[in-house]
Amino acid sequence: MRNDGRAADQARPIKITTNYNKHAEGSVLIEVGDTKVICTATVEERVPPFMKGQGKGWVTAEYSMLPRATSVRNQREAAKGKLGGRTMEIQRLIGRALRSVVNLEALGERSITLDCDVIQADGGTRTTSITGAFVAMAIAIDKLSKDRNLSRFPITDFLGSISVGIIQDKALLDLNYEEDSKAKVDMNVVMTGSGKFVEVQGTGEEAPFSRQELDTLLALAETGIAAMVREQEQALGPIADRIKGAAAHAASRS
Amino acid sequence: MRNDGRAADQARPIKITTNYNKHAEGSVLIEVGDTKVICTATVEERVPPFMKGQGKGWVTAEYSMLPRATSVRNQREAAKGKLGGRTMEIQRLIGRALRSVVNLEALGERSITLDCDVIQADGGTRTTSITGAFVAMAIAIDKLSKDRNLSRFPITDFLGSISVGIIQDKALLDLNYEEDSKAKVDMNVVMTGSGKFVEVQGTGEEAPFSRQELDTLLALAETGIAAMVREQEQALGPIADRIKGAAAHAASRS
Amino acid sequence: MRNDGRAADQARPIKITTNYNKHAEGSVLIEVGDTKVICTATVEERVPPFMKGQGKGWVTAEYSMLPRATSVRNQREAAKGKLGGRTMEIQRLIGRALRSVVNLEALGERSITLDCDVIQADGGTRTTSITGAFVAMAIAIDKLSKDRNLSRFPITDFLGSISVGIIQDKALLDLNYEEDSKAKVDMNVVMTGSGKFVEVQGTGEEAPFSRQELDTLLALAETGIAAMVREQEQALGPIADRIKGAAAHAASRS
Amino acid sequence: MRNDGRAADQARPIKITTNYNKHAEGSVLIEVGDTKVICTATVEERVPPFMKGQGKGWVTAEYSMLPRATSVRNQREAAKGKLGGRTMEIQRLIGRALRSVVNLEALGERSITLDCDVIQADGGTRTTSITGAFVAMAIAIDKLSKDRNLSRFPITDFLGSISVGIIQDKALLDLNYEEDSKAKVDMNVVMTGSGKFVEVQGTGEEAPFSRQELDTLLALAETGIAAMVREQEQALGPIADRIKGAAAHAASRS
Amino acid sequence: MRNDGRAADQARPIKITTNYNKHAEGSVLIEVGDTKVICTATVEERVPPFMKGQGKGWVTAEYSMLPRATSVRNQREAAKGKLGGRTMEIQRLIGRALRSVVNLEALGERSITLDCDVIQADGGTRTTSITGAFVAMAIAIDKLSKDRNLSRFPITDFLGSISVGIIQDKALLDLNYEEDSKAKVDMNVVMTGSGKFVEVQGTGEEAPFSRQELDTLLALAETGIAAMVREQEQALGPIADRIKGAAAHAASRS
Amino acid sequence: MRNDGRAADQARPIKITTNYNKHAEGSVLIEVGDTKVICTATVEERVPPFMKGQGKGWVTAEYSMLPRATSVRNQREAAKGKLGGRTMEIQRLIGRALRSVVNLEALGERSITLDCDVIQADGGTRTTSITGAFVAMAIAIDKLSKDRNLSRFPITDFLGSISVGIIQDKALLDLNYEEDSKAKVDMNVVMTGSGKFVEVQGTGEEAPFSRQELDTLLALAETGIAAMVREQEQALGPIADRIKGAAAHAASRS
Repeated sequence: MRNDGRAADQARPIKITTNYNKHAEGSVLIEVGDTKVICTATVEERVPPFMKGQGKGWVTAEYSMLPRATSVRNQREAAKGKLGGRTMEIQRLIGRALRSVVNLEALGERSITLDCDVIQADGGTRTTSITGAFVAMAIAIDKLSKDRNLSRFPITDFLGSISVGIIQDKALLDLNYEEDSKAKVDMNVVMTGSGKFVEVQGTGEEAPFSRQELDTLLALAETGIAAMVREQEQALGPIADRIKGAAAHAASRS
Repeated sequence: MRNDGRAADQARPIKITTNYNKHAEGSVLIEVGDTKVICTATVEERVPPFMKGQGKGWVTAEYSMLPRATSVRNQREAAKGKLGGRTMEIQRLIGRALRSVVNLEALGERSITLDCDVIQADGGTRTTSITGAFVAMAIAIDKLSKDRNLSRFPITDFLGSISVGIIQDKALLDLNYEEDSKAKVDMNVVMTGSGKFVEVQGTGEEAPFSRQELDTLLALAETGIAAMVREQEQALGPIADRIKGAAAHAASRS
Repeated sequence: MRNDGRAADQARPIKITTNYNKHAEGSVLIEVGDTKVICTATVEERVPPFMKGQGKGWVTAEYSMLPRATSVRNQREAAKGKLGGRTMEIQRLIGRALRSVVNLEALGERSITLDCDVIQADGGTRTTSITGAFVAMAIAIDKLSKDRNLSRFPITDFLGSISVGIIQDKALLDLNYEEDSKAKVDMNVVMTGSGKFVEVQGTGEEAPFSRQELDTLLALAETGIAAMVREQEQALGPIADRIKGAAAHAASRS
Repeated sequence: MRNDGRAADQARPIKITTNYNKHAEGSVLIEVGDTKVICTATVEERVPPFMKGQGKGWVTAEYSMLPRATSVRNQREAAKGKLGGRTMEIQRLIGRALRSVVNLEALGERSITLDCDVIQADGGTRTTSITGAFVAMAIAIDKLSKDRNLSRFPITDFLGSISVGIIQDKALLDLNYEEDSKAKVDMNVVMTGSGKFVEVQGTGEEAPFSRQELDTLLALAETGIAAMVREQEQALGPIADRIKGAAAHAASRS
Repeated sequence: MRNDGRAADQARPIKITTNYNKHAEGSVLIEVGDTKVICTATVEERVPPFMKGQGKGWVTAEYSMLPRATSVRNQREAAKGKLGGRTMEIQRLIGRALRSVVNLEALGERSITLDCDVIQADGGTRTTSITGAFVAMAIAIDKLSKDRNLSRFPITDFLGSISVGIIQDKALLDLNYEEDSKAKVDMNVVMTGSGKFVEVQGTGEEAPFSRQELDTLLALAETGIAAMVREQEQALGPIADRIKGAAAHAASRS
Repeated sequence: MRNDGRAADQARPIKITTNYNKHAEGSVLIEVGDTKVICTATVEERVPPFMKGQGKGWVTAEYSMLPRATSVRNQREAAKGKLGGRTMEIQRLIGRALRSVVNLEALGERSITLDCDVIQADGGTRTTSITGAFVAMAIAIDKLSKDRNLSRFPITDFLGSISVGIIQDKALLDLNYEEDSKAKVDMNVVMTGSGKFVEVQGTGEEAPFSRQELDTLLALAETGIAAMVREQEQALGPIADRIKGAAAHAASRS
């Protein structure tokens, strides 16, 4: 049995509070167990220089942890004067993942920035950020598509993410911090609502893993993400229906 | 009447949620109207180099705003690679203010870092940070004084802060963002529970102010801070009594 | 008696040497006791991005100390790669104070940068910088108003600054370095020639102060600044008359 | 057929020149098609602070591209004043991958830094760096193990890496730059000589991919890496035998 | 006799491999003894802001050493976050020297960047960079002058560089690293093909030198550079003839 | 005739005010024509890490210009966040030059930092800095040698510096700013009191120069520096005699 009493294939409880911030175009407070992340979506009527004049939009993300999100205080990156490698890696991952379910042409020449600020960390902060940022983005895009009367809804599918790992030869779903620091193999998976892979990042620094272990982990992640997507649907209410419609339309065309 | 219906001498509602973070030694979520700040206190068994070997402790603060705390997204200072002048000025103010009510000898050679992270801003973020950080610090110091069996309780008084200003020749208490951007004179005041001044920072960039206007503003601030201190007492419960005891003891000695 | 033999309400001797630098549009070497600051005013026919297209000018300041302005050499901020919090706080203060006596519309879309470089420090470097920068700015604006034939003289009043503080329960005017480091309460005041407050920054980190102490300090500062303004008048000669004219005009309209 | 005439499952020619640098403890120039990387291994008798006193060594990597490694000149990160996110991500990956085949206890309290400098780029620079850095590291560790008479050979297996991707629904091995920029799915795989996975990093930003596509890509990578390891064996000569011996020993124990 | 058996006036063997990089407009690998530098020339159809609209081009250089170019690994400047003084001094020198033999009007409003990356260092890296960068630049300019059909060939003369120094009262040509670190006087000289001086940088930090010593050193350098220029001619083949033609033309006009 | 009426071989008037700063161990204000530099010498009882434990001292220099030292305001390097190449080159030159006349063993394990702050610039700021810094250093070392009762006086000779250049085929001594910007050849020379060269930095970016021109320039510099050294002697009074004694002693031993 796991340190918090869960079964190997049992994810932690999820809670998504929408419209958590009064200023942002879309926002959520997402809690996965004791991991808590505020995700806000900002819509701006401009794109970065390298995207100018292409008639397409852009989606990007920034990630940060409050100094005391962790059990030992970590120094602010603003005070250090630079972003660490881990932060950059995570925010590149979040941005890439979100773009995979956005039709950038349908979005038009505007950009959406997802800020994921971890206010309390207990493992899985990057996967929780992706799952939460998707909801904040969906709210912002829904509002935008109404305000600007967009001809096509720019989101093409749901997007969820979860971590899996191997501890003492046992594959586990949704590692908390204590588990994460013990795992020999660690994998973050991002999938769409229709069950396709967007990101698979597995690492066996402590112990290389076999093809069979990889298969088991992927199967676990698949179930976990499906459940996450159901939580997103519930949190989004009528917006979820618009996404499903757009996803069905996209599927019929491919 | 003011834009949110308050009387000139009426402060916004305050809400202090203690122990908001599971990792920090002390923490609160403080809400003053729509301004929301997470304050955490971190205790570390070391002091900065310039304080070493003096048998005294240190209290310092860091301040930051989430990018979307404001109506327009502001760029992260970590991304810019440096802290802005406003941030530095505010965190120096918070640290100085808190140290005024801590007996650094009684604290011993350890340091307390107060992190004030504004998750939503609507005016008065620096004064709200001071008021909230005091509570987070008190919780952490109370815990410390028990764990380490400190011979003297290191807090010497309560500490609250509020802003005041002049709009169209009218002195107002506790400005919200809209008021703050219209005010010709703007003053932040920090006072102790026993009614002494710790910081008075008045600025009349738009319109120099007379001695009489200054007097009116100080009187308004005095009432507002007294009410804030009552909220702190309530939030702190039995810890408030320890502070009162220490304050009475300090007063009798001076 | 004070360490340099002055009475409690006695300021140090002031000396203002105008046109100290052959390149700048306005410049002074100001000496207040052993504190010596070179202030230069640079006029540029452009404004910062946030001020563009408003038909108004801008006044800003930068402050620095030579490494050996102090008794122990301090490392250059250029070598550290960033400005410290104290520097930023001071240069924001100087800029804000100067803007309070400039009619930015009358200045037109141009900017004035005041560089205050402390070549020797003995307390009161920020207040001395403000007093000196005002004179350098007045010279530059006088020249500008003639060269460009400005319809209105953009300076609306004189501006002086001085520090006050409490040492051993005694209020003192114009602290030198040794006094400054012993003071329990320390206050910097900026006032106009017509006796209004522009900045009041009092801090009692070492010992909170009462309302009565605050009143005593403000009264002391008032006398000190009035004397400083008289020195500015003398240094400015005929330019002083233009300022007085503009101040009288401004007063009659308010 | 591919743009350079290769079959879908055909890797580019590999050339490994050992001892390319006279100063480094181990070095190679590795060429995979037109991608050329100089890898040097530096052995130092100290470990980073976070590893001190654990009786274990550390392996880390740095990655950089010469400005004109690419068809358009890219600005130096030294001139920009900071490392980009892509660079940090790659050097973290290289370090992590190499550590997976080093017995850090057997290495002792010393560190090995692998510098991977891309002098010409044509796709696959990170996988080529890993494959080359392994050889440079093996040479340096072989020398170290003899000089210091290490009781156990610290390398536990070979390590190779290659990229795979999907272009127009076709899975391809070892993408060159032109292919890489067209691929909808892109995956970098790192494996040991005994066929276990160390890193699997697949991304489908342009088009999410199915489980079946993932399986095809992994199978392709497996063949490609096996061939790379054979090249490493040849380049290393007698050192390869020491690695095989250590790998056999490690396998027998697990 | 010298540590590598050379006579006092004997330079090390030179080898220039042209077109070493497939992407750059001009490139060489230059080897002077064990010092090896990759020089690439990048032509861009724009000039830096301070040169805009003058109808003239610009030539600039950047210099760097791979971390393990030296016997002890040196930290990357990209990791430190800034260029060191030595690097800046060297790249300013290289740029200045190259510009002395380019007719910037004939070049037109475009810029050429010479990247000099030292992959192995054994003394004389800056002089070797200049000698190599000249050849890379000549190849790029030759290509440019054909592609753009320039009316005048923009190179006005050859350019070579070598170091000289004094060890134990003996003047030596082309110091290697061991000699360089022992020399009391050290001088870098840059000359044109027609024997004029472009840069003379002599330094006697360890021991001031007499006028007579200076004369001996300059004479040595003159012979060394003449030999270097002959190597450049050979490496450049037909391009050398174009340079000679342009130099003869320039000489006849001055 | 030159723009300020001087003869070709005539230097500008020099004025050296010693003990210009009350805090520094040695200080001067040096004026060469309209170029004015404050030089301070700071003695510290420690050496940089790379010099530790060698029983020797260190001399280093920092150089800066006030923003309005020049006719157009230049941005502070502290505001830019980094030192420019020109600044680094100059401060390396000043430090190297000064060390050439200091016996570092006789100095003992302490360091002297020379801060050269240009308060007004009109050409020759680096040579003026060297000449002035020598005097500040001599005062500080004289004081040190008495306070610490050093067995040997650590200064071995005088040190002066001047610029020379060629304008319209005419060699000129001590260029002012206007001349400097027109010169085709520009050379900075540093020499000892006994007439030996310490630094020769000649550059002909605009026009390569012949051996004969070089000879003429060196001869001019020689006369100019000799006159500078006489000014130093006068400014130093009795300290000059100590330097002469030490120089004679050093000469007799070499």
